[in-house]
Amino acid sequence: MSEGISILGIRGLPEVQPGDDLGALIALHAARCGGLRDGDVVVVAQKVVSKAEGRLRDLRRVEPGEVARGYAERLGHDPRFVQVVLDESARVVRAERVLITETRHGFVCANAGVDHSNVPGQEVVCLLPEDCDRSAARLRMRLRELTGRETAVIVADTFGRPWRTGIVNVALGVAGLAPLIDYRGRPDDHGREMRATVVAVADELAAAAELVMRKTDRVPVAVIRGWHAEAPPGRGRDLIRPPELDLFR
Amino acid sequence: MSEGISILGIRGLPEVQPGDDLGALIALHAARCGGLRDGDVVVVAQKVVSKAEGRLRDLRRVEPGEVARGYAERLGHDPRFVQVVLDESARVVRAERVLITETRHGFVCANAGVDHSNVPGQEVVCLLPEDCDRSAARLRMRLRELTGRETAVIVADTFGRPWRTGIVNVALGVAGLAPLIDYRGRPDDHGREMRATVVAVADELAAAAELVMRKTDRVPVAVIRGWHAEAPPGRGRDLIRPPELDLFR
Repeated sequence: MSEGISILGIRGLPEVQPGDDLGALIALHAARCGGLRDGDVVVVAQKVVSKAEGRLRDLRRVEPGEVARGYAERLGHDPRFVQVVLDESARVVRAERVLITETRHGFVCANAGVDHSNVPGQEVVCLLPEDCDRSAARLRMRLRELTGRETAVIVADTFGRPWRTGIVNVALGVAGLAPLIDYRGRPDDHGREMRATVVAVADELAAAAELVMRKTDRVPVAVIRGWHAEAPPGRGRDLIRPPELDLFR
Repeated sequence: MSEGISILGIRGLPEVQPGDDLGALIALHAARCGGLRDGDVVVVAQKVVSKAEGRLRDLRRVEPGEVARGYAERLGHDPRFVQVVLDESARVVRAERVLITETRHGFVCANAGVDHSNVPGQEVVCLLPEDCDRSAARLRMRLRELTGRETAVIVADTFGRPWRTGIVNVALGVAGLAPLIDYRGRPDDHGREMRATVVAVADELAAAAELVMRKTDRVPVAVIRGWHAEAPPGRGRDLIRPPELDLFR
């Protein structure tokens, strides 16, 4: 067997607080178990990134407006929570049982990625980072500064999807890595040109990382080792399909 | 770093022919590089499964009907190819540039999974297996017979998805593995009950495997080692979201 890739969970991080140096925490805990290497892909759960960046809102300070109260009544939700979701959204896509919205970044997901779980305090919710690519790029620079290693960073969260049951981890922010590999124009194994084969490898890396991160475990960071792609680095926003090219809509 | 998972590509399989004993080919080539172990997840590209099962159609023997000719003209496709896609489909979901259909299994994907690439012969196309779960279960039994190992098997293919650019590998057929892990009702790290957290781990395993399979390489099989889930095994069809529960539709 060849082309081996390994996925390692980084455990032991403390509860991340607003203002924490997340890069330093990751470097420290990675160092305790061998350290980062050049070429490693560091996949970080959005939640710890958001916490470090202070992307939290206290519902006790939220005044829900009329639209939020309308959705809240219809869905049986806390109107203050719905207000936060709407504040993070560019538009509402569906509102049946859960709110599916398009976030201001362009992600389509439940509740604009706003989440109660794994956040301390009953009345505090966690938002997605303001700019997930910027968060990934900053973390990558910080890891380079602290370790001297050239890594790639993915900020990831679990999203639901149409047609298929269950959520999967996807890449929201990307730095130092090609998010898509375009096989179009390359010959297949029989010399015929391949069509329509652009693989979202950053999403596959995020999904792979989730296998060691698990939802309930304290493994907010995974390191993927052995991934190589001869393609120029891009951004997480490259994974957002422009509406006019979305044949599924 | 703990909870390590490794992903290994199995190379060197010959061009698979209808009637080939795919289980024997996998066991043989896995043995050359250390062999399978209990608990391994064997992810197999749909294409080699379909080829071994003879799920090929020669377009020279296809007579396109009126509906197929209509779509073909609109999309600039070969009407015989479109006829094969329609034969494999329960309904057409979209028909702009590519045909997005719901297959008879219930998968929503481009061209009902019918594909030209990596198939020998200019006029031959490859279909999805008739029953992907059955294909996975048979392969698993064959691997057990030949190696004595208790593995899990995923039959996987790359699908596009709404909202996000690029295709990702997903699990079509599953055997010996829980396709979904349901975290609902379990406490989060702060003791609060988690909601709406059912993770499609079989899709994440398929995505992870694609990282070593790559589209152009002759790596039709990957072995994932170190994955453990305390959940009862299920089927690939469990990953098809029932329309009435699909909040994105």
